Amino acid sequence: MTSVADDPDLVVAVEDRLRDVGRQVRRAMLDAMPDGEPVQWLYGPMREYPARPGKALRAALCLSSGRAFGADSAALLGIAVAIELLHNAFLVHDDIADGSEMRRGRPTLSASHGLAAALNAGDGLAIVASQVLRKATRPLDRELADRVLAEFDTMALRTLEGQATEIGWQSDHVEDLVPADYLELIMHKTCWYTTIYPLRVGALIGSAGTADLAPLIRFGFHFGAAFQIRDDLLNLIGDERTYGKEILGDLYEGKRTLTLVHLLDVARGSDRAVLRDYLRRSRAERSPELVRTVRTMMDDYGSIDFTREYAEGILLVAEDYFEEAFADARPGPDLDFLRSLVPYVWARWR
Amino acid sequence: MTSVADDPDLVVAVEDRLRDVGRQVRRAMLDAMPDGEPVQWLYGPMREYPARPGKALRAALCLSSGRAFGADSAALLGIAVAIELLHNAFLVHDDIADGSEMRRGRPTLSASHGLAAALNAGDGLAIVASQVLRKATRPLDRELADRVLAEFDTMALRTLEGQATEIGWQSDHVEDLVPADYLELIMHKTCWYTTIYPLRVGALIGSAGTADLAPLIRFGFHFGAAFQIRDDLLNLIGDERTYGKEILGDLYEGKRTLTLVHLLDVARGSDRAVLRDYLRRSRAERSPELVRTVRTMMDDYGSIDFTREYAEGILLVAEDYFEEAFADARPGPDLDFLRSLVPYVWARWR
Repeated sequence: MTSVADDPDLVVAVEDRLRDVGRQVRRAMLDAMPDGEPVQWLYGPMREYPARPGKALRAALCLSSGRAFGADSAALLGIAVAIELLHNAFLVHDDIADGSEMRRGRPTLSASHGLAAALNAGDGLAIVASQVLRKATRPLDRELADRVLAEFDTMALRTLEGQATEIGWQSDHVEDLVPADYLELIMHKTCWYTTIYPLRVGALIGSAGTADLAPLIRFGFHFGAAFQIRDDLLNLIGDERTYGKEILGDLYEGKRTLTLVHLLDVARGSDRAVLRDYLRRSRAERSPELVRTVRTMMDDYGSIDFTREYAEGILLVAEDYFEEAFADARPGPDLDFLRSLVPYVWARWR
Repeated sequence: MTSVADDPDLVVAVEDRLRDVGRQVRRAMLDAMPDGEPVQWLYGPMREYPARPGKALRAALCLSSGRAFGADSAALLGIAVAIELLHNAFLVHDDIADGSEMRRGRPTLSASHGLAAALNAGDGLAIVASQVLRKATRPLDRELADRVLAEFDTMALRTLEGQATEIGWQSDHVEDLVPADYLELIMHKTCWYTTIYPLRVGALIGSAGTADLAPLIRFGFHFGAAFQIRDDLLNLIGDERTYGKEILGDLYEGKRTLTLVHLLDVARGSDRAVLRDYLRRSRAERSPELVRTVRTMMDDYGSIDFTREYAEGILLVAEDYFEEAFADARPGPDLDFLRSLVPYVWARWR
């Protein structure tokens, strides 16, 4: 893996493809928006996040997985677009729940339009996702269409379960967490809708319901977990301009990331007391000094290194599961792209 | 109409039926809830509003309309339950947007569980509504099922359009409104999902797609508008214990009700200045004294009487449209129930 990850062409190729998919999906998302009123208070705000360039990873996974299993792009695009629309709906609501100020390099909807308008815009995006999904499943035979629709709802519930648990841990000041709790959390919060559903539904459509989906869950979980951990880590060590969100935002929110869970486990003495005090404060009560102190502890106690190594271990497992998950897929550029995502995430650590 | 409205048996009969439907739908809503975790932070909060007795008007309209057009109860119940679940999802989010404290006689979800948990619970209820709806449409032929599903999404968007406009009028301090603007608002905010969709989808299923749905829209709009105006009026003149929400809550929020729109049009001199000052304040800045002053003006300028008479006029039109809308429906207890709803709303004015 390391030798591939050292190949700068790989990173460029993955990012080129993600950018292409992103452009295509962004256009399709905006085309799907209803052309009605009120623009000022609903349909305008609804267009904002979909119009901002995002990673488009979910759409790319669905398209590539589907084509690798034999579907053509036309049968997949609507599904990929529906997933991205739901993702945008979640982002809008998460930004309200977290009190975030920035998203994709610009103010959040709640920051620029107020809480109520943002809430409605998130609801609206979820409904448009449902419209797009239904239209996309119409050409499928009814049983397969039902399955794609049913799994979409299940995936949305899994995401909410994770989101609700994460918020609950913060609001109820839960402290006794271990890495397994964090993995269980991101399995729900991130993996279902970021990796597992896009991969599975692509394979389902490509194989007309015959592919063995169990190995895809295992691959999707490990890959998605590494992806989420990387995202958490970028929030701690990244550059605000390229990251697009507030650096250390998770620390202000008190998010129980793997890094924080590790630190809670290993910090001792007066550091421990500082940490407990930090956890019990509200976001507004967490001063920049306090957040900096916690961030420095993460270096001193090896929590950043622990996180990086943990994710690298998960990625190695993901690489193994990849071959099993796509054993029946067609060789070609789609399979190559999917295979390159593992070293791509690896490369982004450094 | 008046003679029927004076019949106390009619009110009792309508309320008995609504109570029966409410019990049945409440049980079905709770049965549809996923049996997973986190109960504490998601599935517990999601059960709270559906477990509180509500009006069940939407479900009763769908069941009665469907049976009057020939469907059996089993084919309708899931649809009725999905509508009520979506209604509960909207209530949860509206209570966040409005900053409301009470719902159905108990604290709102956001008041008892915090904004983030309430937001997730609302999202979750909408997803369960979608699950229930899909299951309910599976026995229908595919074209009819697609239509029921598509109209459900359209109806949800209409509701959001109204909700977003109402919030926009408040946040942007919109003052130049006339009764037609208010009617347009509640057409979107209330009528689509409270009366039009339940009636239409019932007729659609009962007639296997052959019923003329246009007159049902006209009846649904007039009946729904009268219903919403009555609800607004109860917020001004009702009794907190039986009403279940905060009396004068709409005035604290600055909601542009028909009564307020009338007052804005007719108030003169210093009263007008007081009103403009009231409109421009935030909810927190509206003192009980100020709200009382505005409420008194509504009596003095005849705005309460205007509202009552306006709604009575709409109900008379609804009564005419009723016969056209249900011309092809079967006589029997379902049609009788639907017919009695018009004088029932009338009776509740007094």
